[in-house]
Amino acid sequence: MTEYSTIPARKGAGTRLLSGQSVIVRNTHGEQVVDTWAFSTEDMTEFMSMEHSRARLLKLIPGVGDSLVTNRRRPILTITEDTSGGVHDTLMAACDRYRYEQLGHVGHHDSCTDNLHDALAALGLTPPDVPSPLNLFMNVPISNDGALSFAAPPAMPGGYVTLRAEMDCVVVFSSCPQDMLPVNGANCVPTDAHFRVVG
Amino acid sequence: MTEYSTIPARKGAGTRLLSGQSVIVRNTHGEQVVDTWAFSTEDMTEFMSMEHSRARLLKLIPGVGDSLVTNRRRPILTITEDTSGGVHDTLMAACDRYRYEQLGHVGHHDSCTDNLHDALAALGLTPPDVPSPLNLFMNVPISNDGALSFAAPPAMPGGYVTLRAEMDCVVVFSSCPQDMLPVNGANCVPTDAHFRVVG
Repeated sequence: MTEYSTIPARKGAGTRLLSGQSVIVRNTHGEQVVDTWAFSTEDMTEFMSMEHSRARLLKLIPGVGDSLVTNRRRPILTITEDTSGGVHDTLMAACDRYRYEQLGHVGHHDSCTDNLHDALAALGLTPPDVPSPLNLFMNVPISNDGALSFAAPPAMPGGYVTLRAEMDCVVVFSSCPQDMLPVNGANCVPTDAHFRVVG
Repeated sequence: MTEYSTIPARKGAGTRLLSGQSVIVRNTHGEQVVDTWAFSTEDMTEFMSMEHSRARLLKLIPGVGDSLVTNRRRPILTITEDTSGGVHDTLMAACDRYRYEQLGHVGHHDSCTDNLHDALAALGLTPPDVPSPLNLFMNVPISNDGALSFAAPPAMPGGYVTLRAEMDCVVVFSSCPQDMLPVNGANCVPTDAHFRVVG
């Protein structure tokens, strides 16, 4: 059995999965959003797509038993376990330097978009694009009139999601560095998360 | 004043807009979904993004006065008028050949994704990607538990949306060819729509 790998606070990490393997993504300290991407190993222009997954699943938030699909509508990751409470987001773009500039930050700020590039570069890969991520543990309440907000995640420490690969793929995780909105808890302090490949 | 151009039933059409110009998109016969994309003229890798727009607007469906933004979070199109009833969609991917195959269609079927490519090719351009479109007039009801469905649009004949360009851009429209679900009305018969550049 492999050990857990760290997704350092504010940073990203990635790994290759063979079809049939799973990855456990653990919200070690609770309240930490983990932006998640998956790309086909065979052809990285095929990747997990939130807009195609919503059309297939006919739901805003995927749950246990649901397969996320690619931009060619093929299953790539299936949620097989979720002990986090099931609050996730498929609506929001990954944060990026433009986001932090607009929030008033001056100078460098880590971002999930940069983390995607860095994590893939560490594997010798380049993303063809920045797909809209599966934002594990992210809490985006939706009111009856369709208004959205950014709220602290209800996820408790140690909660996890297990994702099974439905094709050979590269998955990337980013411990979201958002510290200007309560995306990662009311204290706005991003923390480490962890993942482990099984199977 | 320019004449209306046709977005033929099941097909696409595009045009260039200068910053400050507007385009009126008319649901001529009612109940017709028009998938809409916008790319920066200067650099087509900057394009209108639904996931970035939702994060900015904090709503699922943009309305009059709302600016859609690009994947660099800059305004690209602003909705300045809407006589259609205001039912639109930002959640669903453009239809594509994989979609129709999965619905059971055999052989060629027009798709909004192919229409995007064709409309840009007619302007001598190639999309860097297939962004998630602004689905004008599309009706995707959302239940309280986050379940989604595809329903007939309530848009009446002649209803229109006016979009003002906030940067020089290329806009593409597709009269959605979906005829296997009631996306374009209960009769499942796609129709022509029209657009006109003003200013």
